[in-house]
Amino acid sequence: MSGTITLVLVPAAAIAGIGFALVQWFLVSRVKVSTDSSEEGNGFAASLVDEGEEEEGLDRASVISKCAEIQNAISVGATSFLFTEYKYLGIFMVFFGFVIFLFLGSVGGFSKDSEPCTYSKGKLCKPAMANAIFSTTAFLLGALTSVFSGFLGMKIATYANARTTLEARKGVGKAFVTAFRSGAVMGFLLTANGLLVLYICIILFGLYYEDDWEGLYESITGYGLGGSSMALFGRVGGGIYTKAADVGADLVGKVEQNIPEDDPRNPAVIADNVGDNVGDIAGMGSDLFGSYAESSCAALFIASISSFGIQHDLSAMLYPLLISSTGIIVCMVTTLFATDFFVIKTETDVQPSLKRQLLISTVLMTVAIAIVSFVALPSSSTLFNFGNEKHVKNWYLFFCVASGLWAGLAIGYTTEYYTSNAYSPVREVADSCRTGAATNIIFGLALGYKSVIIPIFAIAVTIYVSFSLAGIYGISLAALGMLSTMATCLAIDAYGPVSDNAGGIAEMAGMGHKIRERTDALDAAGNTTAAIGKGFAIGSAALVSLALFGAFVSRAGIISVDVLSPKVFIGLLVGAMLPYWFSAMTMKSVGKAALKMVEEVRRQFNTIPGLMAGTSKPDYAACVKISTDASLKEMIPPGALVILTPLIVGTFFGVYTLAGVLAGSLVSGVQVAISASNTGGAWDNAKKYIEAGACDHAKSLGPKGSDPHRAAVIGDTVGDPLKDTSGPSLNILIKLMAVESLVFAPFFAAHGGLLFKLH
Amino acid sequence: MSGTITLVLVPAAAIAGIGFALVQWFLVSRVKVSTDSSEEGNGFAASLVDEGEEEEGLDRASVISKCAEIQNAISVGATSFLFTEYKYLGIFMVFFGFVIFLFLGSVGGFSKDSEPCTYSKGKLCKPAMANAIFSTTAFLLGALTSVFSGFLGMKIATYANARTTLEARKGVGKAFVTAFRSGAVMGFLLTANGLLVLYICIILFGLYYEDDWEGLYESITGYGLGGSSMALFGRVGGGIYTKAADVGADLVGKVEQNIPEDDPRNPAVIADNVGDNVGDIAGMGSDLFGSYAESSCAALFIASISSFGIQHDLSAMLYPLLISSTGIIVCMVTTLFATDFFVIKTETDVQPSLKRQLLISTVLMTVAIAIVSFVALPSSSTLFNFGNEKHVKNWYLFFCVASGLWAGLAIGYTTEYYTSNAYSPVREVADSCRTGAATNIIFGLALGYKSVIIPIFAIAVTIYVSFSLAGIYGISLAALGMLSTMATCLAIDAYGPVSDNAGGIAEMAGMGHKIRERTDALDAAGNTTAAIGKGFAIGSAALVSLALFGAFVSRAGIISVDVLSPKVFIGLLVGAMLPYWFSAMTMKSVGKAALKMVEEVRRQFNTIPGLMAGTSKPDYAACVKISTDASLKEMIPPGALVILTPLIVGTFFGVYTLAGVLAGSLVSGVQVAISASNTGGAWDNAKKYIEAGACDHAKSLGPKGSDPHRAAVIGDTVGDPLKDTSGPSLNILIKLMAVESLVFAPFFAAHGGLLFKLH
Repeated sequence: MSGTITLVLVPAAAIAGIGFALVQWFLVSRVKVSTDSSEEGNGFAASLVDEGEEEEGLDRASVISKCAEIQNAISVGATSFLFTEYKYLGIFMVFFGFVIFLFLGSVGGFSKDSEPCTYSKGKLCKPAMANAIFSTTAFLLGALTSVFSGFLGMKIATYANARTTLEARKGVGKAFVTAFRSGAVMGFLLTANGLLVLYICIILFGLYYEDDWEGLYESITGYGLGGSSMALFGRVGGGIYTKAADVGADLVGKVEQNIPEDDPRNPAVIADNVGDNVGDIAGMGSDLFGSYAESSCAALFIASISSFGIQHDLSAMLYPLLISSTGIIVCMVTTLFATDFFVIKTETDVQPSLKRQLLISTVLMTVAIAIVSFVALPSSSTLFNFGNEKHVKNWYLFFCVASGLWAGLAIGYTTEYYTSNAYSPVREVADSCRTGAATNIIFGLALGYKSVIIPIFAIAVTIYVSFSLAGIYGISLAALGMLSTMATCLAIDAYGPVSDNAGGIAEMAGMGHKIRERTDALDAAGNTTAAIGKGFAIGSAALVSLALFGAFVSRAGIISVDVLSPKVFIGLLVGAMLPYWFSAMTMKSVGKAALKMVEEVRRQFNTIPGLMAGTSKPDYAACVKISTDASLKEMIPPGALVILTPLIVGTFFGVYTLAGVLAGSLVSGVQVAISASNTGGAWDNAKKYIEAGACDHAKSLGPKGSDPHRAAVIGDTVGDPLKDTSGPSLNILIKLMAVESLVFAPFFAAHGGLLFKLH
Repeated sequence: MSGTITLVLVPAAAIAGIGFALVQWFLVSRVKVSTDSSEEGNGFAASLVDEGEEEEGLDRASVISKCAEIQNAISVGATSFLFTEYKYLGIFMVFFGFVIFLFLGSVGGFSKDSEPCTYSKGKLCKPAMANAIFSTTAFLLGALTSVFSGFLGMKIATYANARTTLEARKGVGKAFVTAFRSGAVMGFLLTANGLLVLYICIILFGLYYEDDWEGLYESITGYGLGGSSMALFGRVGGGIYTKAADVGADLVGKVEQNIPEDDPRNPAVIADNVGDNVGDIAGMGSDLFGSYAESSCAALFIASISSFGIQHDLSAMLYPLLISSTGIIVCMVTTLFATDFFVIKTETDVQPSLKRQLLISTVLMTVAIAIVSFVALPSSSTLFNFGNEKHVKNWYLFFCVASGLWAGLAIGYTTEYYTSNAYSPVREVADSCRTGAATNIIFGLALGYKSVIIPIFAIAVTIYVSFSLAGIYGISLAALGMLSTMATCLAIDAYGPVSDNAGGIAEMAGMGHKIRERTDALDAAGNTTAAIGKGFAIGSAALVSLALFGAFVSRAGIISVDVLSPKVFIGLLVGAMLPYWFSAMTMKSVGKAALKMVEEVRRQFNTIPGLMAGTSKPDYAACVKISTDASLKEMIPPGALVILTPLIVGTFFGVYTLAGVLAGSLVSGVQVAISASNTGGAWDNAKKYIEAGACDHAKSLGPKGSDPHRAAVIGDTVGDPLKDTSGPSLNILIKLMAVESLVFAPFFAAHGGLLFKLH
């Protein structure tokens, strides 16, 4: 395929993705939340009649205005938090950008002279100084795109939540479509923007670098670092925010005062709903954008030092971007299956429909990428793999992408099995609530540990296959393959918090229990899809980190990372410890912030007269402030741990120990992350299983307020920080340390290992 | 030092150790538990008067006979369980011995011809067939010694428990000395027996092997495998037994029926007390014996292929045994500090006294081993380290031993800090109980994660120092150094369950709350020392496994284990997953068995008239049977996982993947094990802190039955399987897989990696 076609196709796909997202947004916007518009225009008068009965709390005008009011409060809260967070992140960005410039510039002594290339023998490449400048620029662009992705996601989510509530009056199907479309907006905007900015970066940087592709793609790696470092703070800060509010609200509201979840009398309820949007939406958006940016950078960097780069074969060189472009198109078609080709009629249809999305996107993508691979790639090419040459055929590379893709599906389905209350694992956990909270916790922890097995084997097989076929480049392609259906994954993932919010709005607006049941059904499926999303995020993070690790090793000029060397082994051991250190910090942060929240909520219940009776309003803002302050303060130590570790280890202990740390944190972090997020998801759904009481077994454990239900609530509360704070942040830990090492590799190789140089 | 002196000193130290143990036993036996002896002979009539007040439940004859009766029930229960367990283990031993013979014999095609030596160039060594026969013999001897060690420990513990109760009437100091002496009996018998059997093995095998030291010490490694495989089943089986009973008893007794712990009306109370002896005593004894045997074997094997072995320098060759011999003597002196030189007057003296034991033994041992190193070792020698020669001086080796020793102390003190309720971490966990069980669990998990940091750094420094000084031999010496004070560690560790039992007997015999308070104080310190013991076990397991790993690599003829090779990396990833799989199995086993126990206990409360009133006796035997059946059935799958993994991986994937699996399970398992055992210990002591109410803060959380206390009980129950089943079994997982790989290395090197040979 000619390079020109590639240069047109990639941005075309990105623009198509953005267009598709805007169409979805328009469709969501057709649900009106303002009371002055004609309600008949919403078209639900008819379907309300279809329901055949008048429901409580459906008085249209007042309900709609109430919904609009709550939606506004959530949106304002989320926006204000994100802006405060971004202020801090802005300072960090400037500071860290300066560090990058300084470290990388110092490699060549800030000289502006050209240097001989490392791989394209005999040629002259751009100076290290250029690398410093462009890496810093790429870092800033990545950071901005990441922040923008998260912010956009939050905007659409807070736009769609009340609309989902209103649509829930017409039936679960309508509500589902609204929530899902809003997820799709986020999914497509994020993937398309990420691709477009990266593409523009490459084109613009290329104006300076000309035919020095090594240098070009070396600086492009800064884009991944920028994306991932913002994601870290987004995930951790958002995670602490949302769970401090959630745990605090539950401990007083559900456990002590015995009022329902999302009851408007609970002072922490707005903070809780804001939290869903800043944590599960904005945080996750940044996170997955980071994965995407990093895997693209890793693949591009390795391609640039293979025959693709040296022979300047543009189509082959941009194969990583073609994979993502193809993914966007495939996901568009897949989305239509959920929104248009099939109709959700009952609550039980929701989960299968989401599951089908995964399967459809995987199958379509496999076919599409096969075609793209044969068209875009030369039938045979040469890769450099840790100093050795490796000859690969185009179908090798196709297999790498496909192996990642299908491993993603395997991880997704396993996660669904372990976290959905349609299957025995969660039901067993629910059953263990009969004997109290302790057995619930024991069974839940055991479930999480067990759920690690299949994903790890899936990742191991993918690594073996893709590594054997195409070395470390194969790994990066497998990561891109797993992430190629990201628009769909994000759609099904983001739909969860939107439904959660929708349920909260229904409760606060005083709508009937039928509406709440529908949003709860969506939300229960959402817990599972959230776990699936995290599974994808973690699985892809493992592959991405390994690819980045490989790229780092190549760039640092290491030939082998021998476990039998003490430098490497102690790195491995300490690296494996980091996820625990990090989790200890984040979990305790949530615990501490939740304790403060509990005190504030209790204080309000005790001092505001008429609060329980519903005659006076709680002080929502005080709770929002607690969550905001706690998350901004508490995100710094874990953030520092992750960002400083590679710098300290690389500078003082050198590249071998750093390689050990990366490998150790990767193999250990994946396990902690998967088990934490699945345990949390399972506890949440065990509780929902008891609450829904959909079968005899579930009924025997219920109803709400029974002893088993109380035990289940305790499990759910413990699971909150596991599944939404520490677990999902861990995949950023492993990715970010790897990409940071890659960016700083020239510095470490030149000046690192100070301590070992002493003796 | 001449070889003859060494040959005399080692058994002399072992026999001295046995003698010392017998003296301690005799001292314990002076407390009489039979009613027909003269009570004045016990000498406590006087001290009872000293108390100045008559206590409830001290009616002498009836109390003593009640104690004797309960002690007998516990002893009979424990003995009968262990014999049943040993029947199963016997079958396993025969079967696995056969597997060893078959696999190792097949290496040389069962030929009886001599082969050229690997390291002593130009010489002829004994055939592979001899290795098969002697490895199998060593395996059986190791297994028998392990079983014997566990059994003996159980015997003395069940002998001393009631004696401790009776002594508690005279004051906490007397009770402490009795419990501690019984721990010392176990500690000295175990270390001395282990050393003696190993020594005899070497002498007898040497009659055949003559000057083929390579072959001799290769077969000796079977001793470690035997010790460790029995330890696995002992720990897992005992762990499931004890925690099924404990969790089951607590859930119904404390939570539902609101009766105190160890109340004789609780049908599971005997099973619970039996469990302490079969799990925490017999299981732990086998476990530490295994560590000891393995580290000796690893050190001896590596020494045999260094200049010590090749030049037949007997004193230097047996340096590992000299370390253990020195340790026995040092620990004797140390013990006197606890039993004779200092007197415990109040409850608060207990913990410092135990802590002092660790410090004293470490300081004395450092001095002693310095002397031994300079006397026994040549001033300079040559080691083989993965194909390279390494020249070492005698003080290098001393530093290796000392680094392990002091790392052990660091781990011990860190563990104490995180699990004793004298410090802020546990108090914070207790404080979090104010807001319920959920925050308690969150804070407890975070504490466990955090407690990993310092031990990992301590281990990492030890590894770096000892590896840099003396390669993999240095690591094995560091492991031996950490284990050299094992007699003392075991004494302070075993004293815990004895005190726990003593408290149970006091409660069941209806003795007053003062006695119970004293035994509770001992028990609270015991929870901490149990955690310290586990910290030692895990820390030494990490070093031992690394030494075994290194020995395996040497024996399999691998030059480097490169993380960048896909075969190794997938091993690393899957290996890191194994501790999770294993923990999932063991925790769920405990959960399931506990559910059965709960049903049985509930059934008895509901169907036996007069049980709550205390007018009729519960059916203790039914509960004992449930624990027995569950543990025997449930120990098989996790056991199979550990034992089969190296065989399957080695046979089908080869030595490189196996090396990856070993390294992965090591670096990941250490973290899981430390965090699990510290979390559990902290929860238990947080509960005890609230119950004891020794300060204003503690009082504000109590008393027993308050909401915070209930929350603390839930944490304690969750912690039970973590700290006594899954956590401590994990260190056996990592050691056993390593030693098994070492024993089977010749087979894997010759015939392994079938799958990779296919393509």
